[in-house]
Amino acid sequence: MAFQGKKLINNPDDVVTEFIEGLVETYPGLQYLDGFPQIKVVLRADVERGAYDKVAVISGGGSGHEPAHAGFVGPGMLTAAVSGDVFASPPVDSILAAIRAVTGPMGCLLIVKNYTGDRLNFGLAAEQAKSEGYKMEMVIVGDDCALPPPRGITGRRGLAGTVLVHKVAGAAADAGLSLADVAAEAKHASEVVGTMGVALSVCTLPGQVTSDRLSPKQMELGLGIHGEPGVAVVELQPVDVVVEHVLKQILSQYLPITRGSNAVLLINGLGATPIMELMIAARKAVPELQLEYGIAVDRVYTGTLMTSLDMAGLSITIMKSDENILKRLDAPTKAPAWPVGSEGNRPPAKFPVPVPPSPSMKDDEILTQPQELSKQGCILEAAIEASATEIINLKDSLNEWDNKVGDGDCGTTMYRGATAILEDMKKRYPMNDAAGTINEIGATIRRVMGGTSGILYDILFKAAYASLKQSRTVTANEWADALEASVAAVSKYGGASAGYRTMLDALIPASTVLKQRLKAGEDPVTAFIASSEAASAGAESTKQMQAKAGRSSYIAPDLLASIPDPGAMAAAAWYRAAALAVKNKLHGSKT
Amino acid sequence: MAFQGKKLINNPDDVVTEFIEGLVETYPGLQYLDGFPQIKVVLRADVERGAYDKVAVISGGGSGHEPAHAGFVGPGMLTAAVSGDVFASPPVDSILAAIRAVTGPMGCLLIVKNYTGDRLNFGLAAEQAKSEGYKMEMVIVGDDCALPPPRGITGRRGLAGTVLVHKVAGAAADAGLSLADVAAEAKHASEVVGTMGVALSVCTLPGQVTSDRLSPKQMELGLGIHGEPGVAVVELQPVDVVVEHVLKQILSQYLPITRGSNAVLLINGLGATPIMELMIAARKAVPELQLEYGIAVDRVYTGTLMTSLDMAGLSITIMKSDENILKRLDAPTKAPAWPVGSEGNRPPAKFPVPVPPSPSMKDDEILTQPQELSKQGCILEAAIEASATEIINLKDSLNEWDNKVGDGDCGTTMYRGATAILEDMKKRYPMNDAAGTINEIGATIRRVMGGTSGILYDILFKAAYASLKQSRTVTANEWADALEASVAAVSKYGGASAGYRTMLDALIPASTVLKQRLKAGEDPVTAFIASSEAASAGAESTKQMQAKAGRSSYIAPDLLASIPDPGAMAAAAWYRAAALAVKNKLHGSKT
Repeated sequence: MAFQGKKLINNPDDVVTEFIEGLVETYPGLQYLDGFPQIKVVLRADVERGAYDKVAVISGGGSGHEPAHAGFVGPGMLTAAVSGDVFASPPVDSILAAIRAVTGPMGCLLIVKNYTGDRLNFGLAAEQAKSEGYKMEMVIVGDDCALPPPRGITGRRGLAGTVLVHKVAGAAADAGLSLADVAAEAKHASEVVGTMGVALSVCTLPGQVTSDRLSPKQMELGLGIHGEPGVAVVELQPVDVVVEHVLKQILSQYLPITRGSNAVLLINGLGATPIMELMIAARKAVPELQLEYGIAVDRVYTGTLMTSLDMAGLSITIMKSDENILKRLDAPTKAPAWPVGSEGNRPPAKFPVPVPPSPSMKDDEILTQPQELSKQGCILEAAIEASATEIINLKDSLNEWDNKVGDGDCGTTMYRGATAILEDMKKRYPMNDAAGTINEIGATIRRVMGGTSGILYDILFKAAYASLKQSRTVTANEWADALEASVAAVSKYGGASAGYRTMLDALIPASTVLKQRLKAGEDPVTAFIASSEAASAGAESTKQMQAKAGRSSYIAPDLLASIPDPGAMAAAAWYRAAALAVKNKLHGSKT
Repeated sequence: MAFQGKKLINNPDDVVTEFIEGLVETYPGLQYLDGFPQIKVVLRADVERGAYDKVAVISGGGSGHEPAHAGFVGPGMLTAAVSGDVFASPPVDSILAAIRAVTGPMGCLLIVKNYTGDRLNFGLAAEQAKSEGYKMEMVIVGDDCALPPPRGITGRRGLAGTVLVHKVAGAAADAGLSLADVAAEAKHASEVVGTMGVALSVCTLPGQVTSDRLSPKQMELGLGIHGEPGVAVVELQPVDVVVEHVLKQILSQYLPITRGSNAVLLINGLGATPIMELMIAARKAVPELQLEYGIAVDRVYTGTLMTSLDMAGLSITIMKSDENILKRLDAPTKAPAWPVGSEGNRPPAKFPVPVPPSPSMKDDEILTQPQELSKQGCILEAAIEASATEIINLKDSLNEWDNKVGDGDCGTTMYRGATAILEDMKKRYPMNDAAGTINEIGATIRRVMGGTSGILYDILFKAAYASLKQSRTVTANEWADALEASVAAVSKYGGASAGYRTMLDALIPASTVLKQRLKAGEDPVTAFIASSEAASAGAESTKQMQAKAGRSSYIAPDLLASIPDPGAMAAAAWYRAAALAVKNKLHGSKT
């Protein structure tokens, strides 16, 4: 629990003013009044004193509920927000300063959460402002549904539902309505909204020690946003059970919501709750409301709007909706903390989009071995067979090297790929179609090899396939281009280059030499042989390299000395085997 | 630490799919592909398969970084996001499904954080898609600046800076640019962005136990977003020191940012960090960059964009900015998690707005006692004097009652107000101006009384003043209106009504009777006397009441029986004293 006392702050006494300074640094549209630290007022930078031609909407209260209330200042929502110290109502003078700074001839609405201190300070400021000639109204929000109807008025606290009231009032004011009409809409909204919170941890005041009233397996139901204990402490439950309980409690009293009503839903994080968890709660709450209670959910707001410092937990708010409320909630606002993207009608139910099929998986495209092999097909077959056989023969050496510089399975993995290629080749490789065959080798590798080397070889053959299929005929130049494309893809996605002690130290020299020789007009077979010698030399040169990628990069350099990279050796081996096989095949047919 | 393992989830295996379900419930503009749980793809609901006429921009990676990446899907940003399991790269088939679902003739850009698994899986999907005929590009982001330049490529992880690259690419695509141009802008952005993180706590994987590698007084510097240990564990520092260190580290290598450069700043929460703390860091980072490093800060983004589950901490990202990057960052988007309100040019420095002066504090308005009292002034003076004297006499009784039902200071508090009123009255009350005098009584009370009763009496006199000053002449009817307004204000802001066992149980009957009698045409003095008898009776009746407001509401009902509410007794006492004084004054002058 000691962890919870940790905060990224400076002096605990400065958290509110420093928060406000950061806020106005972040948002060009926000300004703050002078008079720190007593006066903590954030206001719209574009509202000129005394000249504002709409109803000003002001809210505020103790700090510790960020982004509330200052984050909701902006065109279309609050005109100003007044902050007190953490969990302490702002003084009358601060509220008055805010009123005087933004109120024009249309007057000012104060929206106040139902706490005695806030009611009295905002109330006194309102009366004082009236006596100075300002037109004033005040609406008090007490949306807490955790407690049974109280004997008096102290029971229903103002919670996250207040933010929805801010939005309704702010949008009504922005639409040019009179003070009386804006106040009436805010009052109506405050009467049809209910909230209840649950917490996994207690919040910690800056500079103070965390309460230990919740054990590691407990959670609290029906709490407020000022660290006060909740209505009940219960064992930790799956969030679906929590959501069911909270919705039942909210809908059992206070709210004029019945089967057939429409409503909006707010899932609010209390400060330290990841958005993942809020969304999981939203996922449960929407169908629960619709199917269990017969309430149509018009909008869902999921986010962190009204917090209790670093409390882990969430509150659920339900507001009965109608056409006018939806219009106000959907109206655009520049207030930075108002959630974006929830506006507009939701589809009655959302069904997932079918997954698009793979274009290459059409039934009529299943490949089969051709009855008779072309000359090219014969050569390709010989090369593949020789390459795979070479890898099979090299299995133990590869494993031995890998044992010393990696995890010892290089030979086994490559062997698995090679034997599967030999099997699949007979069954289904379209040998007369070079590109198609290369693509199928990739598919075989993907099916059996696994691991990083499997995916890298898959990428290698995919890139070669994409290159080869661009041409209708495949000659030595197309093969050289395909090798170059393969090397580039393995380097790009795998992240290695020449000298990193990987298979590329065989294949990059091979590709370079092949291109050079062909460009110089050399006979393709001779060029291939020369290229394969470069591959072998490259693989041998890895003995002197430090590892920069793959598991070998975690091995001390002196342990690597004199051991070649098994991946490079394997690549050089199959490449050289292919070159020799092509040479034999062509010379055999020539001589 | 056990607390940190607590999560509001159901089955730990379902967190990613349940998150996605909640996300699409929340945002009408988002859809998801079928194929759960293997395929986890969120895409724009408005993009029709194969028909999208702009470059599709897709990102993704392991889950646990919410709102990234699915929260950045929307017009102007990502076209689709592919999620793997928590901290695990998504499989190739999911990425392919996303590509096929949203890519049109303009092609598709993949933006991938620099992790081997992501590079390989997205890379293979890109090659496969190419071979299916899609135009594909891929940009890899490795913005981590915590480690010294690595030997290989494994060192620089993709962190929160990736989100800025998403935005640049998404806006470029939305502007209709070609795939090559979109990729070039994304690549450029990825090369001018750097990030470093600090953490106060280690993240906990769903269903697992939290690591205890950080003690209650330690923090970690230079960490990643997958729970891996940071570069260094240090003692917890003030956030200003942390910000200085992180900025120094980011700017010491990798980035092409020098004195005179322009940059944008991102302060990113890692999952469980309150916005208050992020803003405090922003407050330090902006002037530090500008004053210490000579870097002009064009934009500030402060929020929770790329997280590591429930990690407490933050990362700082700096991206070198130019006109084009600012245009892309400022371009509108409907992606729900992109921060709102940071767009547009910041003023070079922000100075607080001067606090507006109080209109009633003008020097020439200082009130002074008039030389000669009018008849009305004499009556008012007599009433105030009698009321205050009565309260002074009642001090001990009030304290005694309050001792039994409250905190015992009612008499003392009221006495303080009464004596100050007697003093101020002689000095400065403008007795011939009834409204002004009432206003001054409020000011006296505000200055000396304090506490809830002080603020309630201040409200009472403020409301009376506002009512009285509406008329040019003050007769009995105006006094009755003022009393009614006072009672309404105290009830509204204090929250109590008749029967709550408060001062209103004296004043409500007083107000009602006064109105009734005057309306019936009764002589004002007789009406006042009758009204004061109603006040006394009302105060007496509180003996039988349960408390519904104030401190008495915490006292057991049987303890309250037979004790009157001291606040009601005080109110009845001063009111009755005033009535009797007025009667004496008028009868004295009449007879």
